Amino acid sequence: MNAFSPSRRGLIGAALTGAAATALPVATKARGPAPADREPFYGPHQSGILTPAQLHTYFAAFDLEIESRADVAALLKTWTLAAAQLSEGRPVAGETDGSRIDAHDVLELSPSRLTITFGFGATLFEKEGKDRYGLLPRRPAAFVDLPKFKGDQLILERTGGDLTVQTCADDPQVAFHALRTLARLADGKARLRWSQTGFVGGFKPGETPRNLMGFKDGTMNPDVRDPALMREHVWAGAEGGDWMNGGSYLVARPARIALEHWDRMKEAFQEQTMGRRKLSGAPIGKARETDKLDLDAVDKDGNPVVAENSHVRLAAPESNNGAQMLRRSYSYNNGLSFTVERWPPWRQGMEYDAGLLFVCYQRDPRRAFIPMFEKMSRFDMMNQFVTHIGGGLYACPRGARPGEYVGQNLLEG
Amino acid sequence: MNAFSPSRRGLIGAALTGAAATALPVATKARGPAPADREPFYGPHQSGILTPAQLHTYFAAFDLEIESRADVAALLKTWTLAAAQLSEGRPVAGETDGSRIDAHDVLELSPSRLTITFGFGATLFEKEGKDRYGLLPRRPAAFVDLPKFKGDQLILERTGGDLTVQTCADDPQVAFHALRTLARLADGKARLRWSQTGFVGGFKPGETPRNLMGFKDGTMNPDVRDPALMREHVWAGAEGGDWMNGGSYLVARPARIALEHWDRMKEAFQEQTMGRRKLSGAPIGKARETDKLDLDAVDKDGNPVVAENSHVRLAAPESNNGAQMLRRSYSYNNGLSFTVERWPPWRQGMEYDAGLLFVCYQRDPRRAFIPMFEKMSRFDMMNQFVTHIGGGLYACPRGARPGEYVGQNLLEG
Repeated sequence: MNAFSPSRRGLIGAALTGAAATALPVATKARGPAPADREPFYGPHQSGILTPAQLHTYFAAFDLEIESRADVAALLKTWTLAAAQLSEGRPVAGETDGSRIDAHDVLELSPSRLTITFGFGATLFEKEGKDRYGLLPRRPAAFVDLPKFKGDQLILERTGGDLTVQTCADDPQVAFHALRTLARLADGKARLRWSQTGFVGGFKPGETPRNLMGFKDGTMNPDVRDPALMREHVWAGAEGGDWMNGGSYLVARPARIALEHWDRMKEAFQEQTMGRRKLSGAPIGKARETDKLDLDAVDKDGNPVVAENSHVRLAAPESNNGAQMLRRSYSYNNGLSFTVERWPPWRQGMEYDAGLLFVCYQRDPRRAFIPMFEKMSRFDMMNQFVTHIGGGLYACPRGARPGEYVGQNLLEG
Repeated sequence: MNAFSPSRRGLIGAALTGAAATALPVATKARGPAPADREPFYGPHQSGILTPAQLHTYFAAFDLEIESRADVAALLKTWTLAAAQLSEGRPVAGETDGSRIDAHDVLELSPSRLTITFGFGATLFEKEGKDRYGLLPRRPAAFVDLPKFKGDQLILERTGGDLTVQTCADDPQVAFHALRTLARLADGKARLRWSQTGFVGGFKPGETPRNLMGFKDGTMNPDVRDPALMREHVWAGAEGGDWMNGGSYLVARPARIALEHWDRMKEAFQEQTMGRRKLSGAPIGKARETDKLDLDAVDKDGNPVVAENSHVRLAAPESNNGAQMLRRSYSYNNGLSFTVERWPPWRQGMEYDAGLLFVCYQRDPRRAFIPMFEKMSRFDMMNQFVTHIGGGLYACPRGARPGEYVGQNLLEG
């Protein structure tokens, strides 16, 4: 034993005594990152929605452990202040029982375009039939419960959550650090329910990234530089209350992809399934990725060129009363898992536990994701390879202005 | 049904008929990456050992499903050719039953400094008492079985393996693509046993990266630019046979870190545990990261300045008869898992399933990792927070020269 070392038990016991986090301001070192690496946190909309996708994400859902609306408000206030600091690349000041809030594992790293996007689950408004925080009257009509879709294999422990936090950054350590810091600040108030990391390959600006199926993903996204289009399809208006005016409804669902089976399909079959060419990304029957999808085209026998049950046809606005949503998905890879597949003809056994963290934003899920996926879940040929295993629908409130906190005018007034 | 679409079952059945992969050369598009993004595959040593750490890794262990040494040789030949192609950023040509080997999900991405490093497990030489491939007489004396260390909580399904493949790249999709392509080529010959992804934050060249504990990790690594030092500590010589002359022994063990508990320790305790200052990385009692560790220094009461049971003291060459090894570890993050901790005073329940994929290379594990970790596993204060859960010791043969395959002079002659 040297002068410092007390017993392990003694030290640990001392450090864990007292659960309340007291945010004591301590000196922190500004990291002074290049402005190009920063994404603004405050604004009319939350960051991380229209932001060009960063390379890495950490998506987490929390369950609240507190009983009063004031406590929820206090947590969101703490989170908002911390998120703004983190977005600027600054460590979060403060200690809990003498140990720093910030793990300091990203001390030399730039903000790496970090964004932090908050969402509210339906259970914030009503859980087991109970209006927990007196918020039920403020639940917007558009914020419905997701139906059970055909083929869903939702794992309860990876589904739902009262609050969600999605961190996105070009550096995986920065994305995890931000989430870990917020989780620490929520100690005793909210506990992690499920999480999923994600990544996208370093495709160049203007290139549509390929997902793990090898196809370009996102070609049909509405143009985020068109404010009118965003207002029409992505941002909620005044209809759901001021707190959602400028917010958006998020569907985030991890979808496992049976990569081993997909890889064994002939390329022509993969292309018919997708409705696009693999290498070029062009719609079947067209030459270039950006060529307009022609759903009426038929071959010499009168059969549709783009298959009736192809992914691209079923997802197209033309097939969905003009509905669009903004997809912002990430690939994921959780290593290996032994899984029995749902389709009997496949061999069973080892599979990659990999796929797509499907993420989309929309003004009204009743006109976008829900009817679209209700149809796709029945007909899409891709369903043979893709299984939704969790997640849910969340309301991402409008952005906070400096001095406000996220969700303030839902929780107050 | 359109002209193309046969039944799902029919198509899938057809595609899976016949297990043999026939490598048919097909036209592939050269991606023409910048040479700076390429790491050479062929050479006296395997790549990915002295190579400055890339940002991402995918480590995988395989179990062989084939009975003859010639079949193992054929697999390694196929893997070697594919690895060389992948390292150049070229898709792997060939088809299996009409479906392409290469998933093409990295078509537009550069090689991203991809390296692919192969290793052999002890079970390649002897499994359940049987000399499976007639290789037992060639097992080097240095290639011992790892002992069971104090505190080990090895999960059988994440331990061992006949062959290992570690892909490293600056892009996670490129690293996974390489592993996935090699796994596909091994279909029916070797099956994935365990895997672990890893990452390191984008620290600048010359900066020592911080791991998830927030401390700089790798300060004491021997200088890879010093060939004499590498020969002394990293590269095996002629003592283990020509196939290991220029190879290295790899210890790769995923080690879960109880981040939630670590984060709640006071910084002074963390520093005493590590034996270094958190922010600067300096040894306790010194000012700069690169200052020499002084294990003899005592305070005014005569107690050691660097605690007897600190990590840095126990790992130092001075404490290990001058033994050194090259650490090349990655952080990992598998999301969340509910785990009961080994130390009773901690609260139980939800934990990050995150930590360190500990990776080190050495000339002789009997003089480096084994005695070093045997001692550390008993005394290191850090053991309260770190649990080794799998992995093993693997022999990475010398590099292949053009025209050779990896392990050729182990398997032939």
